[in-house]
Amino acid sequence: MNKDWNTIDFLRHVRHDWLNKIQLIKGNLDLNKPDRVKEIINEIITETKQEAKLSNLDIPQFATKLLIANWENYHFRLEYEVLAEEKCQLTEDDILTSWITLFFQTLNQHIKPFADNHLFISIHSMEEGLRLYVDFNGVLVNTESMSSFLQQPFPKHLVVENTEISDKELVFEVWMNREKTGK
Amino acid sequence: MNKDWNTIDFLRHVRHDWLNKIQLIKGNLDLNKPDRVKEIINEIITETKQEAKLSNLDIPQFATKLLIANWENYHFRLEYEVLAEEKCQLTEDDILTSWITLFFQTLNQHIKPFADNHLFISIHSMEEGLRLYVDFNGVLVNTESMSSFLQQPFPKHLVVENTEISDKELVFEVWMNREKTGK
Repeated sequence: MNKDWNTIDFLRHVRHDWLNKIQLIKGNLDLNKPDRVKEIINEIITETKQEAKLSNLDIPQFATKLLIANWENYHFRLEYEVLAEEKCQLTEDDILTSWITLFFQTLNQHIKPFADNHLFISIHSMEEGLRLYVDFNGVLVNTESMSSFLQQPFPKHLVVENTEISDKELVFEVWMNREKTGK
Repeated sequence: MNKDWNTIDFLRHVRHDWLNKIQLIKGNLDLNKPDRVKEIINEIITETKQEAKLSNLDIPQFATKLLIANWENYHFRLEYEVLAEEKCQLTEDDILTSWITLFFQTLNQHIKPFADNHLFISIHSMEEGLRLYVDFNGVLVNTESMSSFLQQPFPKHLVVENTEISDKELVFEVWMNREKTGK
């Protein structure tokens, strides 16, 4: 899973993603659906704005993990949004990155491959701390192991709370209190 | 000029380039010019095909130099095409990369900043060797130095030939004979 992305491979993935978008526009133009094309373009612009916001949070390792997640052959598709945009701290980057890496791997082991698995992460970085709202929809094959994973103690100041789990959905929040990490 | 591209910056550049294309499509849609939109989309697809061909030549360092050249703040805009597509050799990658790096820097020093400077490179990789057709259009402020640069001896087996130079155009070919480099 830990590929050593070199520039060429990297650009190949990006090019592939963008060409898909262009083909979608082209297809709808050919079907003479200019309104659908405008919708698609607005969706693309919204998506790139979220990418830009994520890139500006000053947590480059964590941001990179999310930005390239859909090229990593996980059995889920990731989407994210960034709502509040208070800059983060460098120490938070390490903690969050270790945690999300472990979470992606664990989730990947406990879901049904090739099912319609979607992971949505909403990121709120506020003055008092950082909160992630995590929402997985799809097929969980081992809810108990997944539950145990989320109940284990995590690196300092990272708290998982409000967990709800079934075989079709997993919802929880991750909270890091900025006062405690010494802002 | 030698920026240490990290992933975030890298994706920022790519995103910026693609958003420009999307905005161009959006603008022409708003002007109710679907035919122009289709032209733009075909240009985009052609361009990405050239990127893919360049990426498949097995000269990753050289390919990267060309792929990221337009993010490097040179005073020229680079375009390229790949015609013949015989795979290259690893030793050619080092030689070509050293040479193109030096050429980009030298050209950049000898052209008028902010003029309409275009550099076009056509790459032909054939059984018998690799040929680059280089064509610069713009404003050269020092044709003599540029000439001397092109006349100096280059790394083994890299030959610059058929040079024509004026203050508005510079054309030459780079030739590397594959029999000599020991295929």
